[in-house]
Amino acid sequence: MTTLLVLFRRPEGGVEAAEAFEQAYAESHLPLIADTPGLRSLRVRRVSEALGGASDLVIVAEMGFDDRAALDAALASDPMRAAGRNLRTIAPGLATMLVLEDAPGLVPGGWR
Amino acid sequence: MTTLLVLFRRPEGGVEAAEAFEQAYAESHLPLIADTPGLRSLRVRRVSEALGGASDLVIVAEMGFDDRAALDAALASDPMRAAGRNLRTIAPGLATMLVLEDAPGLVPGGWR
Repeated sequence: MTTLLVLFRRPEGGVEAAEAFEQAYAESHLPLIADTPGLRSLRVRRVSEALGGASDLVIVAEMGFDDRAALDAALASDPMRAAGRNLRTIAPGLATMLVLEDAPGLVPGGWR
Repeated sequence: MTTLLVLFRRPEGGVEAAEAFEQAYAESHLPLIADTPGLRSLRVRRVSEALGGASDLVIVAEMGFDDRAALDAALASDPMRAAGRNLRTIAPGLATMLVLEDAPGLVPGGWR
């Protein structure tokens, strides 16, 4: 399993900007993501609190693919390319996109 | 489901420091986390690449709990308090800890 983890920072402009971003994200961005070929899982969550320090992160989205090749094919697909263009409009500079791979050596016994 | 997401930044000191951190994380930190009461899921993954920009994040750990009350009880437990002290030794200032909650309004139709 290869995961694309996207961390969204809070936009500048207070509550109004935050609400506008979230609406655009739900209405124009996520439908494109949902159409991505090869997407095996999609999970979008809100940051409700940062423990032990401040954070400017507000939304975390997680997209699962079979492997890195499937992610690369998805990134080259029309929906994902449109989603990328969309992101540059609705959240310029606010997203950090990380490719995650399982780390079997870092899992304690009894947990997968 | 309430999730504790921990983002680890790369320690300063090059490959040697990174390897020392990862070894200490696996040997002294994760066994404490695995003993946390109420823990429903544990997933530790490596950042293999940052897309569209650099990132200093190297490891992402995700701990699932039934709800926020279960997370709060876990945070107050002996294993988690020991894990917190351990983290201040092996990775001082390198972890961002976020509490995530599901965002039903942000999930496209057909995805949970």
